[in-house]
Amino acid sequence: MTVSIVSGGAGFIGVNLLRFLLEEGRTVVVLDNMTRGSENLIHQIYGNHKNQLHVFRCECSSADDMKSAFKRCTGLGQIEEVWHLAANSDIPAGISDASIDLKDTFLTTYELVRAMREFNVPNLHFASSSAIYGDLGDIPLREDIGPLLPISNYGAMKLASEAILSAAAESHLKRVNIFRFPNVVGFPATHGVILDFINKLVAKQNELHVLGNGSQKKSYLHVSDLIGALLTVRGRGDEKKIELINIGPIDSGVTVEWIAQQVVSRISPGAKIVFGEGDKGWVGDVPKFNYSTKRLQSYGWAPELNSEGAVIRAIDEIARQCGL
Amino acid sequence: MTVSIVSGGAGFIGVNLLRFLLEEGRTVVVLDNMTRGSENLIHQIYGNHKNQLHVFRCECSSADDMKSAFKRCTGLGQIEEVWHLAANSDIPAGISDASIDLKDTFLTTYELVRAMREFNVPNLHFASSSAIYGDLGDIPLREDIGPLLPISNYGAMKLASEAILSAAAESHLKRVNIFRFPNVVGFPATHGVILDFINKLVAKQNELHVLGNGSQKKSYLHVSDLIGALLTVRGRGDEKKIELINIGPIDSGVTVEWIAQQVVSRISPGAKIVFGEGDKGWVGDVPKFNYSTKRLQSYGWAPELNSEGAVIRAIDEIARQCGL
Repeated sequence: MTVSIVSGGAGFIGVNLLRFLLEEGRTVVVLDNMTRGSENLIHQIYGNHKNQLHVFRCECSSADDMKSAFKRCTGLGQIEEVWHLAANSDIPAGISDASIDLKDTFLTTYELVRAMREFNVPNLHFASSSAIYGDLGDIPLREDIGPLLPISNYGAMKLASEAILSAAAESHLKRVNIFRFPNVVGFPATHGVILDFINKLVAKQNELHVLGNGSQKKSYLHVSDLIGALLTVRGRGDEKKIELINIGPIDSGVTVEWIAQQVVSRISPGAKIVFGEGDKGWVGDVPKFNYSTKRLQSYGWAPELNSEGAVIRAIDEIARQCGL
Repeated sequence: MTVSIVSGGAGFIGVNLLRFLLEEGRTVVVLDNMTRGSENLIHQIYGNHKNQLHVFRCECSSADDMKSAFKRCTGLGQIEEVWHLAANSDIPAGISDASIDLKDTFLTTYELVRAMREFNVPNLHFASSSAIYGDLGDIPLREDIGPLLPISNYGAMKLASEAILSAAAESHLKRVNIFRFPNVVGFPATHGVILDFINKLVAKQNELHVLGNGSQKKSYLHVSDLIGALLTVRGRGDEKKIELINIGPIDSGVTVEWIAQQVVSRISPGAKIVFGEGDKGWVGDVPKFNYSTKRLQSYGWAPELNSEGAVIRAIDEIARQCGL
């Protein structure tokens, strides 16, 4: 049996990825500390795959936890690949306390790479982030530009993770895909602007306070399209040890104001939207964003939903997730 | 009194930097775990500055050590700047054991930044490395190119350090200079190709074994020129929060074979040079290297010595350091 490990597999992206890996007939092992993820949700969704799917609760930043988790995995079959999705996903939290991203975003990568070396696991797929680029204004963010000057500890620890994966590809990993994720939306949301707005409207039905002036424009990808892109690149036939690739939609995105309007019309029509000041939501937020996905498109991939479509669908999915 | 902190100040670069900082009339505090550095050497060289120069033995990767060191520094005056030079400098060692660069190269940066935040220290000068570029072949290594794919844990942890400094500049640091160091030679050598060759010839006078086929070409900067470049950039009058700059000579460098010949002729004339195979000395070594220093030259800086001159002078200095 071929085993796929998914670190952070109980989180938002992970839960969606599992479906595809299970459909490929693999044995899938989720490693997750369940900070944001939910073991119950996994069993609820994938209850009919219980012989194929294993959930190990473990702290991926702990050398001991990783070693014993990998040992258990070898009992299930040959570990062929790791999808490394474990990370802090609360960017503002990581700015006030740098130790959060050190531990959950960086040391998870570090310990995973060490375990892969010890257990001779060849292939790694890593969820990096567009946040590694920092705030470069209007410059198109292509994979070959620099300097990389992230403005949040989250972005910094994602870049730091890319760096150690690159060194590990030179010394022991056989094949590494570094995916720089965009803003991804869909079910089951654990954080992000849509869930945030919905929660605010649930707490106060007739008013929605928005951080910043709402003019901030970003592009969004629906999680179903994201997974499609990941699997497309995983199947690449070239010999490159490392592929480093921006994942994102093709359009130029939607404003925070537009998202607020859509959420209001779905959740609490008529509620007043109150804006703050400035074009940044919080320290470390990148206001403008010209994300190039030409390399990804060269793989023949295109998203089914543009930013508008992705946000609209996600609002509905998350509203239902919240019982609305 | 204005205090300058130099982490790793007892190491090769640090010991040379101290002279200039002392001459500027600053109170200078060395923080060093003395793994490679020597407290005796500092006192020997700078004995006549003992009221101005303080050496605190501490582990820069330890939060407790850093906090108490910074506390002691505040007793000496206002801490104006930190020169962060503390790092592992044995690249091959860090490839066989990743924890060395994690602790000595990365966590030193992480803890230093935390202490600077707590003690409100505004300015940081960081010794990064050309190793962050990885092996890009003939492509000119300019500061604005990517992708950055380091091939050693040393390079990875230097890039990781750059990343957290960038995030810290967004949240609390006022001014950051990230210097990407080239190969630097001079006194007092603690590692590197020249010291290595001299040690080999001391052990075996009539034969010098060289890793790789000797064709590897790299450029070298003498430490005196390096310090000149650092101080030039520190004095920049612009308002940029972060300057990120390659430091290096202008010429295209010298081969390992040429260095071996120079060392033999100075130390043990007539000794036979025996070459290995391949154009890499060890895993993580970058064989070719087209390092652009145009940005540095735009500051009006030029080295006094080219690679040849730097190596020749360094061989003589290190030979005398070894009592030869």
